[in-house]
Amino acid sequence: MRSAPSSQPEPDRASPPVPKLAIAQFGLGPIGIESVRLSATKPWVRIVGAVDIDPGKAGRPVAEVAGIGNLDGGRVYGTFAELLEDVRPQVVLHTAGSRAAEALAQIEPMCRRGISVASTCEELLYPMLRAPEEARRLDDICRESGSRVVGTGVNPGFVMDVLPICLSGVCRSVVKISAWRVVDASSRRKPLQRKIGSGLEPQAFNDLVQRGCAGHAGFRESASLIAHAMAWKLDDLQETCEPVIAVDEIRTEHFQVQRGFVSGLHQRCIGRVESEVRIELDLSMYLGAPDPHDAVRIEGDPRLEVRIPGGVAGDQATVAALVNVVPRLVRASPGLRLMTDLAVPAFA
Amino acid sequence: MRSAPSSQPEPDRASPPVPKLAIAQFGLGPIGIESVRLSATKPWVRIVGAVDIDPGKAGRPVAEVAGIGNLDGGRVYGTFAELLEDVRPQVVLHTAGSRAAEALAQIEPMCRRGISVASTCEELLYPMLRAPEEARRLDDICRESGSRVVGTGVNPGFVMDVLPICLSGVCRSVVKISAWRVVDASSRRKPLQRKIGSGLEPQAFNDLVQRGCAGHAGFRESASLIAHAMAWKLDDLQETCEPVIAVDEIRTEHFQVQRGFVSGLHQRCIGRVESEVRIELDLSMYLGAPDPHDAVRIEGDPRLEVRIPGGVAGDQATVAALVNVVPRLVRASPGLRLMTDLAVPAFA
Repeated sequence: MRSAPSSQPEPDRASPPVPKLAIAQFGLGPIGIESVRLSATKPWVRIVGAVDIDPGKAGRPVAEVAGIGNLDGGRVYGTFAELLEDVRPQVVLHTAGSRAAEALAQIEPMCRRGISVASTCEELLYPMLRAPEEARRLDDICRESGSRVVGTGVNPGFVMDVLPICLSGVCRSVVKISAWRVVDASSRRKPLQRKIGSGLEPQAFNDLVQRGCAGHAGFRESASLIAHAMAWKLDDLQETCEPVIAVDEIRTEHFQVQRGFVSGLHQRCIGRVESEVRIELDLSMYLGAPDPHDAVRIEGDPRLEVRIPGGVAGDQATVAALVNVVPRLVRASPGLRLMTDLAVPAFA
Repeated sequence: MRSAPSSQPEPDRASPPVPKLAIAQFGLGPIGIESVRLSATKPWVRIVGAVDIDPGKAGRPVAEVAGIGNLDGGRVYGTFAELLEDVRPQVVLHTAGSRAAEALAQIEPMCRRGISVASTCEELLYPMLRAPEEARRLDDICRESGSRVVGTGVNPGFVMDVLPICLSGVCRSVVKISAWRVVDASSRRKPLQRKIGSGLEPQAFNDLVQRGCAGHAGFRESASLIAHAMAWKLDDLQETCEPVIAVDEIRTEHFQVQRGFVSGLHQRCIGRVESEVRIELDLSMYLGAPDPHDAVRIEGDPRLEVRIPGGVAGDQATVAALVNVVPRLVRASPGLRLMTDLAVPAFA
């Protein structure tokens, strides 16, 4: 109701001047580049630099690497330590990798300096699942230094976790939460088409899944965040990932898939409490998938079913979720936070 | 990520013992009774008493008035001051009235004593709209005493404001937000059927609307909350309310509506920024409305459309929103809060 404390971004952008947050981008892959581009449009953001391991990017202006003409965004550094010698970001947007332990190791030196971090690392949606010790340590560091960290995105981060949790807020009781998503991968970028196994032989796909090198990352994290929010203690959390086989030849900009080869995946994640299925997440992501949509069902009182025809567009929305979380992140209490600890998502 | 401070409810109900919040109910109309009934099912709630002006209720056990056999919920008092002589609630659930100024006057003595309040008062969803001075004063009181106040519900409070705002969190840009709701009022309780004008002559309905005695309360508040979250400064906020006329005779449990008389309402609220329509809320609530549903559309990048077939059931969900907000309210910073200041809604 009141003017925000001075450390907070001014919520009413209609009233200039707007105090800007100094933001650095960590990782300049396709998502990182889009993150810079979107951040540059925000009146509350001042981009001060970026970090990327690619020697072809280090040393160049961020504006040039991101393809934005009129941006005074500092330069790209090969390491975060080098960036810190020149500039002092208040927030880092982290778009490097899917693994919690690796991301937490990259983020730790930022937090030690009181810098808050929003990350698209899928496993950071619920870091206690796969990296509990590292998560606890980072949480301690954040509380000491006054920084905050959160993992966000669209999936994981919204469609199959935060949105169903948000809907449960109007329920007197919740028996089971289901979310499903049908994504036509034809128009998505090449790394995603590869990640879902496009063009592989089925056996090669299964081998990749076994080695954790294919499939949608963060599914168990979505289920774990739901369970956390519902205060359900899951006895069992099972994930399966099957190939979807092309029945006709499929051609995309990036792949040519013969009949009988893999066109994508069907992934499921089931959470049980005392042998009852309480969480059911189902993702079909393949080339040419018909009737793409997202849906959530809450079995409870009242029963709710929500459908999003066409679904929430992946990469664009992921970058939006990342940038939009920043004002809410810096208002949160210090610590390693979950999306459900922060204020209601909102365009920022 | 950590155990909550001692003043907070334990989030993991799977780990007993659960520290309970002492809760009092203010208002024992139909919503207040349901609030007591739902609260009584929560392991984190201890009901310590209730307040109602009805002399037929004062002095009786809360359990008896609410029709719950095995509840040790204290008794009903005629005034809040009397309740305070006997018990000390940490949180009050306020279900008395729709007007911000009146509700804030009732709530003020609670906040002075450091007691937090969640209210279904429609205008408290965005109290700055109609009671800015009273809201500022209560905000000051809350900050001094360490209490928090929030207005919540389903509509206003979720379907046409918090839900669209939440969806905007995955958008790179937002041009316009629309929400519409079609409610078949046939099965709703009598006060709601009366509020929408059931059985009136059209002219009588229009007179009531003119006097502010019919129609859905809180529509402008929904639009104002959206505008606040989007940092849009509305130049214009128009509300209209038209009767829906019965084309055939309609009979419900409570009303008999002749052809040509009012079966309900069609209410719209339009918010403009620089003469562009940016917010459009549309509510059809009448006896026998076909295909009841809720829907939200965000025109932006990406464009999102969300549909909830059947809609979110009114009264039951309103009570759920009220009780579920409590754990998030007591974790929020002291002050007169908005739903968008609190953590993501969730079943509690």
